[in-house]
Amino acid sequence: MDVSKRIKDFQASPIRRLSPLARQAEERGIKVYHLNIGQPDIKTPKEAIKAIRAYNNPIIAYGPSEGIPELLNALPSYYRKYGLDIDSSDILITTGGSEALMFSFLTLCDPGDEIILPEPFYTNVASFARMAEAVLVPVTSTLDDAFALPSIETIEQKITSRTKVILICNPNNPTGYIYSREELLRILEICRRHDIFLMVDEVYREFCYDGAEFISVLSFTDYKDRVIVTDSFSKRYSMCGSRVGSIISKNHEVLAAALKLGQARLCPPDLEQRAAVAALLNTPDSYVEATKLEYLKRRNCLFECLSRIPGVKCTLPKGAFYMVAQLPVEDTQDFAAFLLRDFSYNGATVMVAPADGFYITKGLGKNQVRLAYVLTSEDLKQACLCLEKGLEAYNRN
Amino acid sequence: MDVSKRIKDFQASPIRRLSPLARQAEERGIKVYHLNIGQPDIKTPKEAIKAIRAYNNPIIAYGPSEGIPELLNALPSYYRKYGLDIDSSDILITTGGSEALMFSFLTLCDPGDEIILPEPFYTNVASFARMAEAVLVPVTSTLDDAFALPSIETIEQKITSRTKVILICNPNNPTGYIYSREELLRILEICRRHDIFLMVDEVYREFCYDGAEFISVLSFTDYKDRVIVTDSFSKRYSMCGSRVGSIISKNHEVLAAALKLGQARLCPPDLEQRAAVAALLNTPDSYVEATKLEYLKRRNCLFECLSRIPGVKCTLPKGAFYMVAQLPVEDTQDFAAFLLRDFSYNGATVMVAPADGFYITKGLGKNQVRLAYVLTSEDLKQACLCLEKGLEAYNRN
Repeated sequence: MDVSKRIKDFQASPIRRLSPLARQAEERGIKVYHLNIGQPDIKTPKEAIKAIRAYNNPIIAYGPSEGIPELLNALPSYYRKYGLDIDSSDILITTGGSEALMFSFLTLCDPGDEIILPEPFYTNVASFARMAEAVLVPVTSTLDDAFALPSIETIEQKITSRTKVILICNPNNPTGYIYSREELLRILEICRRHDIFLMVDEVYREFCYDGAEFISVLSFTDYKDRVIVTDSFSKRYSMCGSRVGSIISKNHEVLAAALKLGQARLCPPDLEQRAAVAALLNTPDSYVEATKLEYLKRRNCLFECLSRIPGVKCTLPKGAFYMVAQLPVEDTQDFAAFLLRDFSYNGATVMVAPADGFYITKGLGKNQVRLAYVLTSEDLKQACLCLEKGLEAYNRN
Repeated sequence: MDVSKRIKDFQASPIRRLSPLARQAEERGIKVYHLNIGQPDIKTPKEAIKAIRAYNNPIIAYGPSEGIPELLNALPSYYRKYGLDIDSSDILITTGGSEALMFSFLTLCDPGDEIILPEPFYTNVASFARMAEAVLVPVTSTLDDAFALPSIETIEQKITSRTKVILICNPNNPTGYIYSREELLRILEICRRHDIFLMVDEVYREFCYDGAEFISVLSFTDYKDRVIVTDSFSKRYSMCGSRVGSIISKNHEVLAAALKLGQARLCPPDLEQRAAVAALLNTPDSYVEATKLEYLKRRNCLFECLSRIPGVKCTLPKGAFYMVAQLPVEDTQDFAAFLLRDFSYNGATVMVAPADGFYITKGLGKNQVRLAYVLTSEDLKQACLCLEKGLEAYNRN
């Protein structure tokens, strides 16, 4: 009587596995700056909260497995703002972007099938791939190269008869990289040549800085049958706890197959879908614009503060709200635990996500962390101060 | 470029696959009585709705992967009512009972591992088992025997070196069978003898009729390390759309392993967990009592109406709110489609779930349907009238 080998191989989330230490620090009265997780302190649109407070269904009933019609019908006009021609029938509502990734992998990959993706990557992808018993095949992007897409040749060399999917995240979590039109087109051409799918996680679509243009893979209509996009309301409307996401594809065979998984789990949560409809229909464009400007300010602040810490190396992210930074330590897992367990500065400390869990290639990321710039500039400054003092204390030992 | 073999093997849900035909019927102005799905028309406790309407968090934020503390802390007193000593640390909150089943299978079973379960069984179990690449090994319970637990010898004969789990649903969906203390003890003894887990789905705990006593498997503390219970708020509080469930186990190695899956999907939906807390703490016992009496009335009504239809065979369920009935047709899938597509009586028709998807053994259940008695007695009478007239029309052709 034992748990499965599969689950033993699962890594505990590098974003969350130190949470017990953080809770203990907080119980000791220490203020913990959470740079480990992409939980924004930006307020959810009041229109969404209003919809929740106006909820008056007498029964919280099962909805359709594909999502409530109000939400399916509201989404096309959102995509139209991006010049994308998306129909309700191209959408499957999921319980968060997480379920969208999981459903896509289970739908596209059999055990042993391969998914090529740039590393570092959003770490939970590894868990969803393991659920589907799919194999992640990394192409490494590097801090020195500002985490740019590795060369097309490098990618193409990784393709085998088992390759089913290339997966990218655009704008990228955790690196902030934004893929250009030419890069997307080159990846799509590889996919066509080798007859494989391209999955793009576009949940950070709104967050592009310095005039960087976001190009949705959905705009390349010539390739539409091989494109699957995963999306989410979590970041756009700062409603991470609401667990509403989607799979978007013009390939209705894929959507119908994924719907079988949707039917097994019955339906996405009802209340949150109603909040999402309100967010979508009633939130003024100024909300997203203001949020983006706020993140831009925070990015600049974090980058500036980090750059001043001796031995820290980082690159200015173009999008999303994360940064991968190299620290002057050998093992950021050990250092992150130290920060929570054995350190505080002026009654505060900082929680970071060790980056090795964002890589497949053994040894990579050991001296890197992922930082989310979702706190106010003032908090980010304090957090960086803790980080600097923490590095000093850690390296003194 | 093709979807996975895994997903091709998935059956479309027998509960939901005819939904497009039902929608089309409704669009033609036909009233459809939905006996296919366990969506009660009982109102959600007003205490839960009130909590939703009082929601005033400025940010719908990520919660802990194991569930919000308010919910984890509220649950032990609920179980105490059943004489069960459950601690918050024995609980993992999941996104519905569905996720509880899926997480349990992924946590306990590797590809090829076997799960023994009585058939007919809750059909979506087959989908979750396929996600984990586990093999369902059925022991058949029969209508003639009122769907009683097959003999212990029959169960024990199915055990192989790959058997990891015995799974039962108590009270049973779809048969309404309730397992006695002796039966549970005998199953637990098999599990001990062969060192395997016992999973029990107890989501219908409250719904036992005719004085039948519900015995939770959690009360057998001698076996606590091998017991995993899946639970849900959906049916107890008629809040199916809220997707809040749980895994309960004293085996913390299993819970910790399942939590890795929980961390990958980040957290259960926030609003619904708050509604669940309110339902749990503030709903008077009279709510559940009244609900149970209402289902009892409906059970009796459905049983009486069905028994009068020529050629229909059924047995009086002791619990839950489903019934498996045998119809005088060869293929209930074809008949169910006929009812929605080609038939109406006085402007109405009825939707039933073909039961073959509730069996593993090929050929079984072809002439059976699962009926949910979640509508008012008056609606159930009308639905049975449609069923009777539908059978006449179908068998005339």
